[in-house]
Amino acid sequence: MKKVKIEIIPVGNEILIGQIIDTNSAWMAAQLTKAGFEIIAITTVGDCTKDICQALDTAFSRADVVLMTGGVGPTKDDITKTTLCNYFNTDLVFDDSVLENINRIFAHKNYALNELTRNQAFVPKNCTVIQNIVGTAPVLWFEQNNKVLVSMPGVPFEMKTVMSDEIIPRLRKQFQSIDYLKSSLLISGITESALAIRLSDFEEQLSQKFSLAYLPSYGLIRLRLSAWGAENAPEMEARKEQLKQLVKDVLIDESDKPLETILGEKLRSKKLSISTAESCTGGNIAHQITLISGASNYFKGSIVSYANQVKSDILNIDSEIIDKYGAVSREVVEQMAQSVSKKLKTDCSIAVSGIAGPDGGTPDKPVGTVWICTKVKDKILTQKYQFGTSREENINRTTNMALLQLIKMLE
Amino acid sequence: MKKVKIEIIPVGNEILIGQIIDTNSAWMAAQLTKAGFEIIAITTVGDCTKDICQALDTAFSRADVVLMTGGVGPTKDDITKTTLCNYFNTDLVFDDSVLENINRIFAHKNYALNELTRNQAFVPKNCTVIQNIVGTAPVLWFEQNNKVLVSMPGVPFEMKTVMSDEIIPRLRKQFQSIDYLKSSLLISGITESALAIRLSDFEEQLSQKFSLAYLPSYGLIRLRLSAWGAENAPEMEARKEQLKQLVKDVLIDESDKPLETILGEKLRSKKLSISTAESCTGGNIAHQITLISGASNYFKGSIVSYANQVKSDILNIDSEIIDKYGAVSREVVEQMAQSVSKKLKTDCSIAVSGIAGPDGGTPDKPVGTVWICTKVKDKILTQKYQFGTSREENINRTTNMALLQLIKMLE
Repeated sequence: MKKVKIEIIPVGNEILIGQIIDTNSAWMAAQLTKAGFEIIAITTVGDCTKDICQALDTAFSRADVVLMTGGVGPTKDDITKTTLCNYFNTDLVFDDSVLENINRIFAHKNYALNELTRNQAFVPKNCTVIQNIVGTAPVLWFEQNNKVLVSMPGVPFEMKTVMSDEIIPRLRKQFQSIDYLKSSLLISGITESALAIRLSDFEEQLSQKFSLAYLPSYGLIRLRLSAWGAENAPEMEARKEQLKQLVKDVLIDESDKPLETILGEKLRSKKLSISTAESCTGGNIAHQITLISGASNYFKGSIVSYANQVKSDILNIDSEIIDKYGAVSREVVEQMAQSVSKKLKTDCSIAVSGIAGPDGGTPDKPVGTVWICTKVKDKILTQKYQFGTSREENINRTTNMALLQLIKMLE
Repeated sequence: MKKVKIEIIPVGNEILIGQIIDTNSAWMAAQLTKAGFEIIAITTVGDCTKDICQALDTAFSRADVVLMTGGVGPTKDDITKTTLCNYFNTDLVFDDSVLENINRIFAHKNYALNELTRNQAFVPKNCTVIQNIVGTAPVLWFEQNNKVLVSMPGVPFEMKTVMSDEIIPRLRKQFQSIDYLKSSLLISGITESALAIRLSDFEEQLSQKFSLAYLPSYGLIRLRLSAWGAENAPEMEARKEQLKQLVKDVLIDESDKPLETILGEKLRSKKLSISTAESCTGGNIAHQITLISGASNYFKGSIVSYANQVKSDILNIDSEIIDKYGAVSREVVEQMAQSVSKKLKTDCSIAVSGIAGPDGGTPDKPVGTVWICTKVKDKILTQKYQFGTSREENINRTTNMALLQLIKMLE
C-alpha cells in the first residue's frame, strides 16, 4: 500500500522577510501525520505569480495532495486566487453562498460590508468551494489527474478550523491513509553521541521499516522510533520495550509530550499543587504550566519578583540575605521557593533567579548564571546552571531545566 | 543592479511530522533581508537523500546562495553531510582543525570524546570548513559556478552564532548587497478591507518599485511599505509621510516592533513603572514584557493569581466581590489592577481575568470572555472582550489586547 504524499505551500512575503514565524505548517504536519498521510516537503514562496506556479509544478510532480496557505486576503498584495485561476486556466465567478457566509460573519461582528470584502465571493469556476465559517476568504478545492490542491487562509485560527472540520475529513474519505506508528522516549543526562553508541547494536538490528531519530534540545534528547503501517504494531511494541531497557537509567518519560504536560500529569496523579516564584524567567514558567488545559487543578499562582523590592515586600526575602549573597544565589532562590509555597499554600514550588542578559553580568556571575530551586513538600533541591549569552535562550533553557528538575524529583 | 537571491533549505523529518516549529528560517530570513539579500524560497525536506538532492537542484536553478540547516548531528539519522558528498561527487577527509575545536568544546564541558563525535571531523574534500565554535558539527561552504551552498547545524543557537559571526559577513564580502527599505505602520481599530479602500488611491499612484502589504493579526494590522535599493530612500520617506496622514486616526506606532517593545519604549520615555496581575494569561503578559532586554528599568513584577484563593490572599480582593460578580468580572479585574500597582509600587498596571477554555465556560460567560483593566497613575480603563474557543489563541489574544490597551492609554 502506497503512502499518500502531501506537500504544504505557505505563501507570503512576510515569511520570506522573516516578519513572522510560520507556525501553521508544524500544526498541519502534525495533524496530517496523525491522520495517516506523509508530508514530503514544505515549500514557502512569496506573493509572486511566477514563484507560486513553479512551486505548484514541483509539488504536483512529487505529491498527491498540495495544501496552500495564505495570500487570500481582500487586499492587492494577496494574489493566490488569481494565480490559481491562471494556473488552472479558468475564470472567476461570483458565488452567492460565499457572500452569505461573509454577511453572516459581518453581521455578527457589526462590520459594514464593503466592495473589497464582497469580492472575496469571486471564486475560480472549476473548483469546489468550501465555506470558511470563521473568516471571509473561502476555501478552494481543486482536482486534476487524481490529485488535489487546496487553497486556504493563512490566519492560524481560520486555517486550523477549516483543516479540522473540512480538509482532513475530506482527505481521509478520498484517499487511503496509513497508520503512522511512533514511540517516543524523553531522555536526559547523556550526550547524543554517547546515547547513539549505546544504541548502535539496537540500530544495527532494526528492520528497514523502522527508523530511529534523535532530537536534542536544551539538555534533553527526544528519541523517536517510527514506522508506517498498522501491521508493524507488534514489532513496534517489542522494539520499544528493548529501547526502554537500554535507556532506563536516563529515561524521563515515555512520550514526546512537552515538559509542562508531563509535569501536570505527575502533579495530578500525586494530587499535588504547585506555585512558582520567578525572577529571570519573568513569568514564563507559570505561562508554560498554564498552557495546559486543566492546569487550574494543580497550579495556584506565581509571584514574579523581578525587582529586589518585590522579593522583599511580597516574598519576604530577607534584604540582608539579598545584600550579602546577591539576588542570584542559592540562599535567595531557596527562600523564594519556601516563601511562595507557603504564601500560595502549595505542596510544590519552583523558584528561579538568574542573569538573563545581555547586560547585568559580572566576572563572578556572568550572563547565563542561573539558580533553580525546586520543592516537593519538605524536600528541596537547588542547582546552579551556566547557560549562554542570549537572553531569549536563557529564559527558555531556565524554564525547561526548572520543569525538568521538578519532574525528576517527582519520579 | 541585480538582487542576490537566497534559498533556505531546512532538513529534518522532525519538521515534516510537525514535532517542532521551524523558528530558524524566520530568524535567518530577517537577518539576511537586513543584510541586503532577497530570500526567494524556504524549502523544507526530510532526512532523505533523494529529496535533499531534488531540493538542491531546484534551489540552484533559481538562487545564487543556498543555505541548508540541520541533519548534521553525529547519529545515523543525520545524512546531510554524506548526501552533499554524493551531490558534489567528492569524498570525506579527516580535518584536524575540526577535531581540535571538538576537543576544546568537550574539555570545557567535561565530556569524554567518543568515536561518533570524532567522526564529525570528517568533511567533504572540496569544501571550505568554517569552525562552529559553539558545537561539534562543522560548517561546510561549497562553491560551484559562482554559486554558494552552506551546510550548517539546525540547533538554533549554533545556527545563529555561525550565521552572525561567519556566514553573513562572508556573503556580504563575496556578493553585492542591496538595501532593503521598509516603512512599517502598526494600525488598530479598522478592518483590513476598510483600510485597503481608504488607501486605494495611494496604492494606485504607487510606483512599481514599491510594494504595500497588509499583515493582520489579533485586532492589529501591520502595514508594510517596502522597496529595494538605497536610491529609493527619498521617495520612501515622502510616501511614508503620505501614508501616515492617511491613517493617523488609527495609527498605533511607526514600526513593526512587537507590542512589548513599543510599550517598553513608552514606559521608559515617560519614566513610568509597571506590574501585572494575571489570571487567564498565567504569566504570559509578564513574560512578553520581560523578553525585552532592559525591562528591569520599568517592570517590577507580577502576581499570577490563578486560583481565587490567591486573588484574596495575595491581592486582597474582597471574596464577597468574587462571590457576587465572579472572578471574571469588571469589579474583580479593577481591584486586581489597583491592588497589584499598590503592592508592587508601580505607576501602571495591567490586570486580566477570563475564561481561556476549553472548559469553564457558562451561558453567561462563554469560553473566550475576558476582562482587561489597564491603569496609568489614577486613571483606569476597563474593557470586556469576547475571543474564541482555543485556549492558546485566547491566551495570546488577551496578552496582545492588554498590551495594546495600555499603549493606547499612554499616547
